[in-house]
Amino acid sequence: MKKLINDPADVVAEALRGMDAAHPELRVDHANRIVYRADAPVQGKVGLISGGGSGHEPMHGGFVGPGMLDAACAGEVFTSPVPDQMVEATKNVDGGAGVLHIVKNYTGDVMNFEMAAELAAAETGVDVLSVVTDDDVAVQDSLYTAGRRGVGVTVLLEKIVGAAADEGRDLAAVAAVARKVNGQGRSMGMALTSCTVPAAGQPTFDLPDDQMEIGIGIHGEPGRRRVPVAPAREIAAMLVEPVLADLDFTGPDGVICFVNGMGGTPLLELYLMYNEVAALLDKAGVRIARSLVGPYITSLEMAGCSVTLLRCDDELIRLWDAPVRTPGLRWGA
Amino acid sequence: MKKLINDPADVVAEALRGMDAAHPELRVDHANRIVYRADAPVQGKVGLISGGGSGHEPMHGGFVGPGMLDAACAGEVFTSPVPDQMVEATKNVDGGAGVLHIVKNYTGDVMNFEMAAELAAAETGVDVLSVVTDDDVAVQDSLYTAGRRGVGVTVLLEKIVGAAADEGRDLAAVAAVARKVNGQGRSMGMALTSCTVPAAGQPTFDLPDDQMEIGIGIHGEPGRRRVPVAPAREIAAMLVEPVLADLDFTGPDGVICFVNGMGGTPLLELYLMYNEVAALLDKAGVRIARSLVGPYITSLEMAGCSVTLLRCDDELIRLWDAPVRTPGLRWGA
Repeated sequence: MKKLINDPADVVAEALRGMDAAHPELRVDHANRIVYRADAPVQGKVGLISGGGSGHEPMHGGFVGPGMLDAACAGEVFTSPVPDQMVEATKNVDGGAGVLHIVKNYTGDVMNFEMAAELAAAETGVDVLSVVTDDDVAVQDSLYTAGRRGVGVTVLLEKIVGAAADEGRDLAAVAAVARKVNGQGRSMGMALTSCTVPAAGQPTFDLPDDQMEIGIGIHGEPGRRRVPVAPAREIAAMLVEPVLADLDFTGPDGVICFVNGMGGTPLLELYLMYNEVAALLDKAGVRIARSLVGPYITSLEMAGCSVTLLRCDDELIRLWDAPVRTPGLRWGA
Repeated sequence: MKKLINDPADVVAEALRGMDAAHPELRVDHANRIVYRADAPVQGKVGLISGGGSGHEPMHGGFVGPGMLDAACAGEVFTSPVPDQMVEATKNVDGGAGVLHIVKNYTGDVMNFEMAAELAAAETGVDVLSVVTDDDVAVQDSLYTAGRRGVGVTVLLEKIVGAAADEGRDLAAVAAVARKVNGQGRSMGMALTSCTVPAAGQPTFDLPDDQMEIGIGIHGEPGRRRVPVAPAREIAAMLVEPVLADLDFTGPDGVICFVNGMGGTPLLELYLMYNEVAALLDKAGVRIARSLVGPYITSLEMAGCSVTLLRCDDELIRLWDAPVRTPGLRWGA
């Protein structure tokens, strides 16, 4: 295992120390492994928290800041944070308008966030609503999931819902925007290589030199099938076609087209993939309104990519364009 | 070779198509492989161009936009662009105040940019000055270089000099800022793995499973030495100590501390490395004024990192903080 780490047991704690040192605009609770925007709670604004296993950076800690999340709870690599972290974060981001939990659909995350919502309500009376993302069209049920997995749409959702909360909408309205984004977004990913969880020390799965996995999950969960490595043009079709088959994206307001890197794939290849994806969308009559290209929801050093489409309307585009200032996504501020 | 590509010969051209499609605020001349900000030339502003081999993304095309470069010339992977590209870019970004060429110290780049400056001056009379970056303390002379190699400081320089040009300074003054940044910046890098140039199809070099290369160049050029893989804490010392030994960074205004990913190293590990680097600087009495952590000058999918320190003063901090709006670096705009 070749990694820039010290003791594998300390990876998450030490990375959070680095994040804290590099970003004075964030505040990190190291005991509870929670990343906060430094000025949390923001009075009168719905608080937004998310979290999940580490290893997907910049998600979620890198999406904390004005216009996006108020806090993110970090679990061990590819392991859900625990309810105590989420309860603590919920208390600390509540500015009197309640808190929304943004949860990717993995059994551990869903169970722990549910427990946290109940505990937080019981202990402090804070209003909590939850939204679960489940945008991955690759498989129904998976290694760690009942139903579809939550993947790329989570990034777009955290940005858009962050803007909705900034506008002063109430908790129910913010949650409604979140559900709308999840309902209108679909994703599919693939991997050329595995990744290695530091504590495991061995690749999560074996993938022969001439094979790739289509429909991979962000923890290396099995996808739809293994096939011989193919040109980017064919890979793009293997990702885009199932996404387009699952939802009609041919609306007049177009889509946000998000080509995500899994962590070990260079930006050069992601732009090349974007070119293929854009050509397929054009052919299918899908208009691209906005784009995002880069590694935003990763699987450590896995080589591969995913494609997420989000069907837009004027409201979603406006919220997407609103200012955001986080380590991972930043514009207009 | 496992890559998200079609024909290896088309990688750069197709990635530029993707970049063009994803970023309406840029304009790409595909025949000449030049990325422009869409509103170039900006009248009265010194034009800034850079360029070099592809495979280092987001550098340089991803640093084109308001507050940074006016144009970037893309060569084949790890291969200098040709003088004709640079001449064309020089003509098209000249807004009457002359053009600065920002060149990394590699023999091919330096020679081609020199020829381009002469040709552009002869053909069009545009004033051209050049600055060459040579911040890599690892080796004196290298596979493709006489003298030190130009690496991480190039990213910081393009940002800072972009802000100086935005302030309306004249060509000589903008070039002076560029030389000052290069003079006050030092870098050193390392690799855990090689990378594979698409056209070659094989890893650039062999690095056994238990070895790493300290002082690596961004094209996989040999560094100072190969040593057994070590904990991040020791790796940080191997990078930071030679940098600190080469220049006094203990000024009252501190440094910009840039921990760069080589392309295949996850952000989780880069933040962990940043934590180690920050601890070493603290011990050495070096104050961190600003930070940058992420993959900004990469070597395809190489796993590894580099550390760049830039000694600052009020002027450089102010220029660093100024608004920038490019695909790769963006804040305040």
